[in-house]
Amino acid sequence: MHRHITIPPDHPRAGSLQTRELLVDGFRRGLVAAEGLIAHGRGEAYDYLIGEKTTQQAQRAIKAAAALLLLSRRPVISVNGNVAALCPKEMVELAKATRAAIEVNLFYRTGQRELAIKEELQRHGAKHVLGIGMKASARIPELQSERRRVDPEGIFVADTVFVPLEDGDRTEALARMGKKIITVDLNPLSRTAKAAHITIVDNIVRTMPYFVKSALSLRESKSLKKIYQGFDNSRNLHESLRIIKEGV
Amino acid sequence: MHRHITIPPDHPRAGSLQTRELLVDGFRRGLVAAEGLIAHGRGEAYDYLIGEKTTQQAQRAIKAAAALLLLSRRPVISVNGNVAALCPKEMVELAKATRAAIEVNLFYRTGQRELAIKEELQRHGAKHVLGIGMKASARIPELQSERRRVDPEGIFVADTVFVPLEDGDRTEALARMGKKIITVDLNPLSRTAKAAHITIVDNIVRTMPYFVKSALSLRESKSLKKIYQGFDNSRNLHESLRIIKEGV
Repeated sequence: MHRHITIPPDHPRAGSLQTRELLVDGFRRGLVAAEGLIAHGRGEAYDYLIGEKTTQQAQRAIKAAAALLLLSRRPVISVNGNVAALCPKEMVELAKATRAAIEVNLFYRTGQRELAIKEELQRHGAKHVLGIGMKASARIPELQSERRRVDPEGIFVADTVFVPLEDGDRTEALARMGKKIITVDLNPLSRTAKAAHITIVDNIVRTMPYFVKSALSLRESKSLKKIYQGFDNSRNLHESLRIIKEGV
Repeated sequence: MHRHITIPPDHPRAGSLQTRELLVDGFRRGLVAAEGLIAHGRGEAYDYLIGEKTTQQAQRAIKAAAALLLLSRRPVISVNGNVAALCPKEMVELAKATRAAIEVNLFYRTGQRELAIKEELQRHGAKHVLGIGMKASARIPELQSERRRVDPEGIFVADTVFVPLEDGDRTEALARMGKKIITVDLNPLSRTAKAAHITIVDNIVRTMPYFVKSALSLRESKSLKKIYQGFDNSRNLHESLRIIKEGV
């Protein structure tokens, strides 16, 4: 049953409500898990506290992330249900801009949801999508059962993985495998935020267009290394936390 | 498809994860709306910041709320999908302890969900449940369409309404109708928190057993008025906010 609620454009929370509708719609289309809706709510709360804007810290993190993806030999972009529902187009654009592979990577894995996400990405121009079905046969050490499956041609052999909106256990396990991790997480205190090398503390809906633009404009840059190495994630997290604190 | 994930009891977030499962289960049983899952996630974020404990402020608010319900002539307890999924037993116990009526009151109203919630409450001992079907024919002024329907024998004529986990528009509209409002809301900055006369800034799963116990122990009390009048909600919100601020 699809219920349509019209959000007046001058509603004080219009942006947040539109994003919420996008996610609920993704849920009804089989992209998003029930737990993904709850996770989105947590993000909404932190976004409210951070002022629902992309901070200067986040902008710096995005640029460093774009530089790192461009510097990497085997970058992989990991897409879950919430990401597919909120910004499928920008994920494909980022993959093209940085020559990264795209892999579907689900915490609550079902064949149906995997396929729905793959099709959504293809609808937005993805040519090749990793991590589907039997192909996701490699294992992340330490993690249990379905949660640890990754594609042997994708995340398993990647040097850098972009895992936005990711679970703490998995982010930590990937970091211990020696991969460079980029994430988007609105909670600077989360285990994912702390385990990543670059944490973009921002709403992914705002992040992605800026991320694609940064990647495109940095493609010919000679200072990629400088941009990446000049970025300090603990300082970034510290500053982002300070902004949230002021928001309360 | 019901997926069972076993949460180790020593997991640092076991309490929060068990509550989450309760809600997802309620969603699968047709009690909870998709938007209710997102709202729960927002609550999780604030609960994390408040330290996942019932503060002294919240305890005081609960006692004042119990006193107010016992002082009221026509108290009504409003139950939505999340409340029915998380603490149906305690809602019925509170209604009995305070001789309050119970009314099903949904933001996303469907006949099916109304009935599922009614049956859940009856399974936990509720004798009479208001607000179902054609009976919910009175209107809250100012609100649109289905959202403003209330039972002419319940919320419409109530002097005090307990509306835990309620939407801001509706709480404000009920307050403007002259009703005394008690709510449970983990965000002390929300419109609901500000519009209510007593805001319990706490996780409803922790609040309810304490609320029932307080109501039972205050039943014969002669100082109900004193307890209620001695409570200052703006101070309560201010103090709760301070605790959250320290948690960040």
